[in-house]
Parts: sequence; C-alpha cells; structure tokens
Amino acid sequence: MKLSTVKIAGRVTWGIVEGETFHDVGAAMKATYPDLKQAVAAGFAGVAEAKAGAAIFPISEVEWLAVIPNPDKILCVGLNYEMHRQETGRSVVENPTIFARYANSQTGHLAPIVRPKVSSDLDYEGELAVIISKPGRYISRDNALEHVAGYSIYNDGSVRDFQRHTHQFTPGKNFPDTGAFGPWMMTPDELGDLDPLRIQTRLNGEVVQDATFGMMIFDVARIIEYCSSFTRLEAGDVIATGTPGGVGAKRNPPLWMKPGDIVEVEIDKLGILRNPIGQEA
Amino acid sequence: MKLSTVKIAGRVTWGIVEGETFHDVGAAMKATYPDLKQAVAAGFAGVAEAKAGAAIFPISEVEWLAVIPNPDKILCVGLNYEMHRQETGRSVVENPTIFARYANSQTGHLAPIVRPKVSSDLDYEGELAVIISKPGRYISRDNALEHVAGYSIYNDGSVRDFQRHTHQFTPGKNFPDTGAFGPWMMTPDELGDLDPLRIQTRLNGEVVQDATFGMMIFDVARIIEYCSSFTRLEAGDVIATGTPGGVGAKRNPPLWMKPGDIVEVEIDKLGILRNPIGQEA
Repeated sequence: MKLSTVKIAGRVTWGIVEGETFHDVGAAMKATYPDLKQAVAAGFAGVAEAKAGAAIFPISEVEWLAVIPNPDKILCVGLNYEMHRQETGRSVVENPTIFARYANSQTGHLAPIVRPKVSSDLDYEGELAVIISKPGRYISRDNALEHVAGYSIYNDGSVRDFQRHTHQFTPGKNFPDTGAFGPWMMTPDELGDLDPLRIQTRLNGEVVQDATFGMMIFDVARIIEYCSSFTRLEAGDVIATGTPGGVGAKRNPPLWMKPGDIVEVEIDKLGILRNPIGQEA
Repeated sequence: MKLSTVKIAGRVTWGIVEGETFHDVGAAMKATYPDLKQAVAAGFAGVAEAKAGAAIFPISEVEWLAVIPNPDKILCVGLNYEMHRQETGRSVVENPTIFARYANSQTGHLAPIVRPKVSSDLDYEGELAVIISKPGRYISRDNALEHVAGYSIYNDGSVRDFQRHTHQFTPGKNFPDTGAFGPWMMTPDELGDLDPLRIQTRLNGEVVQDATFGMMIFDVARIIEYCSSFTRLEAGDVIATGTPGGVGAKRNPPLWMKPGDIVEVEIDKLGILRNPIGQEA
C-alpha cells in the first residue's frame, strides 16, 4: 500500500495511491484520522475498507505535500555509507551520527527545493526515510522492524556553509523548503528486503549518487535501536537514514544545485522523488 | 506578568502566577486559547481581562509542567559563554552553535530530572530561555526583541557520553525528562535589562555555575537574528541560550548528578527552577 498527504483544490487530505489514481481516504475518515500521522498511529485500521467508498482523483490533479507534514521528530542519520564517510574525512564511530530537522523545513514531491537568498551552497542528499508506527523506547534490534509503518524517499537538502558555521549541523539542515519527502510511503510488506534495493540521485539527469541499502554502515534496525535508546519514538516520527557518497560539496569544484535544476532521488520499487530547484525572492 | 502551564487535580491548564496564587486563565479561555502557546501567539490578547473571572489556586496545589510543553522547535545554543567555551576546548566561531532538543524531552519545575538506566553521566546546564511571540524570518538584530514573548529558566540536562558518541550533540540532549523548563515565563517588561542579571546553578546547595547575561558571547538579539536566518521562528518556539562555565563534565573528577540530588537554577528577578534527580527504573 502506498499512502501520502496531498492538496486537492486547496484542501489538504491524505489517501492511497494506486497506479495513476489517488483515493481520498482522508476525506472519508476525517473524523477518525484527521491526518496521515493519526492513521499511521492506528496501524491503518479501517483504511482499506474506507478506500472502497472514497472519492478518486487522477494523481495529475493532486499537489504532493511532505508525506508526513507534521512529524513530532525528524531524526537524520549522518555519515551512514562508507564512501560518504570517507569523502567527508570523518572517523569511524560505533554509533550512528544523529542530527535533527524540524517539520517546517519539509516540502513535497514536484514542489521546489528552495535555494535561500543567503547562500548558494545548496546540496542534495538522497536518502531512505523510515516512518515509525508503534511508539517505543529501548526497542531492540530484533523487534525494531515491527515499529516501521513504511518507507519513503527523502532529499535531505543541505545548505553547506551554514552546516559548517560550527561543528553542529542544525542550521544547514533546516532551511524552509529544503527537506523533500515523497511522493508517498510504501508499507514494508510491499517493499520487501531493503538490502538489494538501489538508491540513485540524479541532478539534471546525471547520476550523482548510486548505492544499495546493503551498503549502509548502520542498518534500519540498528538505527531504530539507537534512536530509541535516547528518545521515545512516536507514531509518525521520521528517520532519514543517511546519504551515500557523491554529495556536491565534496566534488572538485563543488557541484551546487541552482535555480532551474531538476533533482531526482529514485529508490527501486518505491519510486522517484523529483524536485525543481527554486530561488528565494 | 508570569505565566505557566500546570496540572491541577489531573487537568492540564495554564494561567498567571501572582505571588502564591495561580489564576486559572486556561480554564476561563479554553475555547480561545487551548494552550499557553496559543495565548503567546495572540500576544496574550484578553488574558489580563480573563484573569479577573478566573478560578484561583494556591501554587502549592499545582503541578508545574514545562512552561511551553509543545513548542514546534526548541533551539539550543552551545558554547555561548567564554569560560564554557574554554573549558570545552572549542574554537572561537563567528556564529552561534545551534543544536536541537525535541519537545518530548522536557519536564517542569519540581519534577524529577531523570537519570536514564543507560548512563550515569548526567550533567546540569543552567540557561536563560527565550519564548518567541511573533513568527518571523530574517529578523534583524535591531527588531529581534520585538519577537520575544518572555523569558524563563532552562536546565538543559545532558547525558554526556551519548552527547560525545559522535560529533553531533543530539542524542545526549534528548533523553526524556532531562530538559527542565520553568517555573514560569516572565514578560520582558517585567524582567527589564538582561545584561546585569545573574544566573546561578546550584547542586545540593553548592554553587556550580555563576555568571551574568552580559557575559554571553552572542546576545539574545543576535541569537534570534541568526536562528531566523535559517528557519522561520514560530510563536511558542523556545531558544535555550547556552550555559555558563562550570559544567560537571569538565571538572576533575567529573561531577555527575545522581538520584536524590537537588539541582537549582536561579535567575535574578525570574525565580528558581528546582528539580530533584530521579532514576529510571
């Protein structure tokens, strides 16, 4: 099952995507689940049934929003692929590197990732996103995947000079309209084994990142185990699991995204997250 | 005016504190402002009037919660006093060091700060907290203080080994019940000029941190200017402005907080934030 949050004729709703059709389950279940986060929290109870009576729209008529526009937490993993760790010159560590993105930095599929007026160092980071279902603390690695509602695609757009103002990444990771998240989340049963799946980032059609999830230093289960050791994971929380090697900042000369560019992150089976680059006025 | 969020006989509300009396404005204005964050967003319009008809309780009967339990963002400033920068061995930088705390790590005045079962390296960090009123982006230093709804006291409780697992602080700053915030916020007109005000942290009565806000490397206006350059500040957002020198981690031997201890952060005029240290079961 593929689900997302969208806007239709100015109205925000959520629903199920099948092929070229969007089923507006959000309108049908408004009283039960006012947003997709609530449906995730309830394990999608009643959602398949509600779909039968839901209005349908061609996906060409929906405006894609961030899959979960209002997560309590967006936990981002840094340096989770060996090639990226090496290109950044960072040491090997025993635990995942975690930093935070706030919800108001997100945007959806096909919406512009916005280059701010205060910087031109706008970089891409294609990533697998995990959406948490069951809340939990001290989740063991063995049980971790039971807490996953689904997977999605994230472009952890980064403003590199702000990221490097100090040793903490937060400023460079929180500009408005830089965290692209979509087009949808896919439930784990449909995505299957992650390890062989390929993630590829393309800038104006040129491949700039290319890896498989088997290359992650810390796998999804270990990331959930670690994050839940210091915070209670809540339904709808999002974990961006880190980006492969090939970021623009580490090229010579650096490759920055600029207005008019098109950036795509593709994950096998999941789909393509495509965003034009815009410029803040 | 002093305002806070509290629980009375199991019911969460917010209101005005005057001397030993709590005025339950939240119950009187439930339909208008369901929480203190909404009242902050509205510039407290109608709040003084509603107080006249509000039920009153002795403050001994209220359970203090985090002043704003549900901020969209908690932005924390690191290394903002020269003595603390020196004790940590960090370089001089031109911009504030910013990291993030999530709302679910907060607790209130008199509630225990909880030492987790996975670490004994629990440290105090007494800080001035700023609560944002008017939302804004690219706020200039000159206009920054117009965006302040009030000030409060924060104990940015830190689990140091987790903070140092990697170069990103996030894990060590987000354990549940480690971010103490209270007892109340005070409006700027009542607090007056910040520079001469003293902040003091005491552990079991012994002074462990002692500074004045004039010693901040980046003052409140500059912090707001910087934060609003990379994110849109929203009403109710909280900025913890950094801790003075004297943290437990940099003592020899280190001074950790342990169950049964009492930690207090006092700020002139504002009051005392007091928390016992508890132990996670």
